[in-house]
Amino acid sequence: MSSPADTAWGLTPGHGPRGRVPSRSARSLGAVRITRLEAFADGVFAIAVTLLVLEIGIPKSGEEPGHAITGQWAQYFAYVPPFVTTGIMWVNHHAMLEHFSRADRRFLFLNVLFLMCIAFAPFPTALVAEHLHSTTAALVYGTSFMVTAVMFNAIWHYGRLHLLRPDADPRAVSGITRSYLPGPLMYGGSALVAFASPVASIALYGAIACVYVLSETVWGRAA
Amino acid sequence: MSSPADTAWGLTPGHGPRGRVPSRSARSLGAVRITRLEAFADGVFAIAVTLLVLEIGIPKSGEEPGHAITGQWAQYFAYVPPFVTTGIMWVNHHAMLEHFSRADRRFLFLNVLFLMCIAFAPFPTALVAEHLHSTTAALVYGTSFMVTAVMFNAIWHYGRLHLLRPDADPRAVSGITRSYLPGPLMYGGSALVAFASPVASIALYGAIACVYVLSETVWGRAA
Amino acid sequence: MSSPADTAWGLTPGHGPRGRVPSRSARSLGAVRITRLEAFADGVFAIAVTLLVLEIGIPKSGEEPGHAITGQWAQYFAYVPPFVTTGIMWVNHHAMLEHFSRADRRFLFLNVLFLMCIAFAPFPTALVAEHLHSTTAALVYGTSFMVTAVMFNAIWHYGRLHLLRPDADPRAVSGITRSYLPGPLMYGGSALVAFASPVASIALYGAIACVYVLSETVWGRAA
Amino acid sequence: MSSPADTAWGLTPGHGPRGRVPSRSARSLGAVRITRLEAFADGVFAIAVTLLVLEIGIPKSGEEPGHAITGQWAQYFAYVPPFVTTGIMWVNHHAMLEHFSRADRRFLFLNVLFLMCIAFAPFPTALVAEHLHSTTAALVYGTSFMVTAVMFNAIWHYGRLHLLRPDADPRAVSGITRSYLPGPLMYGGSALVAFASPVASIALYGAIACVYVLSETVWGRAA
Repeated sequence: MSSPADTAWGLTPGHGPRGRVPSRSARSLGAVRITRLEAFADGVFAIAVTLLVLEIGIPKSGEEPGHAITGQWAQYFAYVPPFVTTGIMWVNHHAMLEHFSRADRRFLFLNVLFLMCIAFAPFPTALVAEHLHSTTAALVYGTSFMVTAVMFNAIWHYGRLHLLRPDADPRAVSGITRSYLPGPLMYGGSALVAFASPVASIALYGAIACVYVLSETVWGRAA
Repeated sequence: MSSPADTAWGLTPGHGPRGRVPSRSARSLGAVRITRLEAFADGVFAIAVTLLVLEIGIPKSGEEPGHAITGQWAQYFAYVPPFVTTGIMWVNHHAMLEHFSRADRRFLFLNVLFLMCIAFAPFPTALVAEHLHSTTAALVYGTSFMVTAVMFNAIWHYGRLHLLRPDADPRAVSGITRSYLPGPLMYGGSALVAFASPVASIALYGAIACVYVLSETVWGRAA
Repeated sequence: MSSPADTAWGLTPGHGPRGRVPSRSARSLGAVRITRLEAFADGVFAIAVTLLVLEIGIPKSGEEPGHAITGQWAQYFAYVPPFVTTGIMWVNHHAMLEHFSRADRRFLFLNVLFLMCIAFAPFPTALVAEHLHSTTAALVYGTSFMVTAVMFNAIWHYGRLHLLRPDADPRAVSGITRSYLPGPLMYGGSALVAFASPVASIALYGAIACVYVLSETVWGRAA
Repeated sequence: MSSPADTAWGLTPGHGPRGRVPSRSARSLGAVRITRLEAFADGVFAIAVTLLVLEIGIPKSGEEPGHAITGQWAQYFAYVPPFVTTGIMWVNHHAMLEHFSRADRRFLFLNVLFLMCIAFAPFPTALVAEHLHSTTAALVYGTSFMVTAVMFNAIWHYGRLHLLRPDADPRAVSGITRSYLPGPLMYGGSALVAFASPVASIALYGAIACVYVLSETVWGRAA
């Protein structure tokens, strides 16, 4: 990590820190390439969202599918928000890793815990689709996404403190810190609403997904 | 993104824009590498097609599998067209991304929506296999693939307008625009046929898959 | 694809034809990078083998799992040969692609068909595990792997004729041609044995897997 | 593999042995790039852990999910240790491959056998979750992870003896050898405890996962 190489990273196409082989001393200390974390993370993200569709039941032969599909509207609705929310988390995880110059073993382990939350998403999704009016289901859903958002903040702060690129833009870093903060609060607050009304709680989860979509598209121009 | 580097991209093996680290300013603005979008997309495509086989039911022990398999011909037929169609979409998605020099956050988000359609494919496939004579099933199948084709056009046009490589061949670009246009119309038209005859509608979906296969193989020489 | 670059490929670490960006003319003609085919193929291979374990039924609570597991020996046996055989196909697909300098659209499409066979493997595997004494099941299993082996030969010969690296070793090429030839014959022959005895046919499939394992390990030193 | 190139590997960012194209003679002998093994391994690891969540049953509509979820505590507990243990194995597999300069066909085949063990993990996990007090279930779980740990040692020792990088640090190598040794013994010993008490055996599996987590995080600083 000599400084001439560091300053060259932003300028030389195709020769960046992300593709480099860690130096011998870094290797002995367990530093690893971020590219392989990305491959594993992309795999878990891709599988978790693709498994969501398996939760939608196929009406059995004999039943008229028209009636069955109309009756399954909650299952279709349940497919969209977690797919979109998880997809946006994938985009953000992607953008986050761009700011780090390497990964250490603790960062990898924190990512394993984060991906465990991502891979868990099909369960609360199916639970809410099956039990639309249950306080427990809405509570499990909100808690699950709140813990995921907490883990997302945890890997960001660990990486920000220990693995930040030397050339990272301080304003971008504090912008990310601010933008990740509301996630746990929004999901935690919506989960508490489940004690009053499970349906209102679920509507709030849909609203959170809409906020994320809007901040990626319409509002994204400013950022 | 100096122009000498741009002109060098086509000439220097292994040093292309696709593998490059975004410059510092690009990174702060959320520009990301296309390679990671490819990894996520390849994952979703690979899983979606591989899950299709899970929809084929195994005859229970006790049943004579010979009879059961003969009775399941619709399920086997249902496995092939979506696998081939999704496989060709993977080839085309691949070829499309070659024309773009980078990805921005809106492009990634559009791709998440597109991959949501790809990942949904096992559901209408299983629905048609189970309900061969149902108008609803044929309608859901056609609508699902029509929306997928619309999203495919949307990500192409967004990328064409905002992310095109400086050295992209204008004739290749307009050729792609033309070749993607019929997709939504073909699927939408075949879906409407389901109101008259579900089986005719499904036969048209098979014909569309054949058209795509022929355009990849026999007719592909001209392109 | 100037010849100085070609001769340099084998010598310069990290600058190979496989990572290179296709030249502008190649791009317009639909030539694509082999690396993305590998990513898609690795995904399908990885998912197909991992789904095999889902076919093993979990004894229900109430049943004594000891008895149930002893009664399920065919399911465990059924898990191992397709995993090992598919794993070896992955190794061979990998080694095969090393000989090609690029991929064209027809080659990609042939690979989609080949991967459709790979992704189909969990179905005949579960069929044989459930119906050990059925001629139909043994026949479906053998035919399925025979078609997979035929497709494997097809992509090899298409690539050998159209996409071979300029510096490919002719002896290695003809060695691969010879080594892939017996696959369809072995599976086709074992399938025909199913008409006489399904169990003998299945024993032959196990023997084929053993032959492949031995040729990878003990006999592999000579090659 | 000239020695000037070897010595340059640790110094030149982006030009390492892991990304290089094998020389022509190496290619003819079946040497392959480690990067593709990583892609396949990452896929199997990612899918195996993501499938674990599918084993958690969704309470049917009509049931009160609150009661059902409380009754399912063993299933939730069963999700966490294999996810964490497999995740740590992914980190270690990752770190292990950093020490090797290339892969040969036997190494790939040993990795296929190792990944077969990884992909098998959802079965014993579901078995223990369903049959908490069964000696057979606890025995199958422990044996399965013991065989996985044995395979992990086998690929390490094969790679250490045949594929080690010329510049590998001998102390790091012997440190890895020591750290992988206890795995089979810990799982084998915990499996034997199942004959006395299945629940005690399962508690020991949880304790092993905790040991691995602590050695990755708190104790990891020293290493």
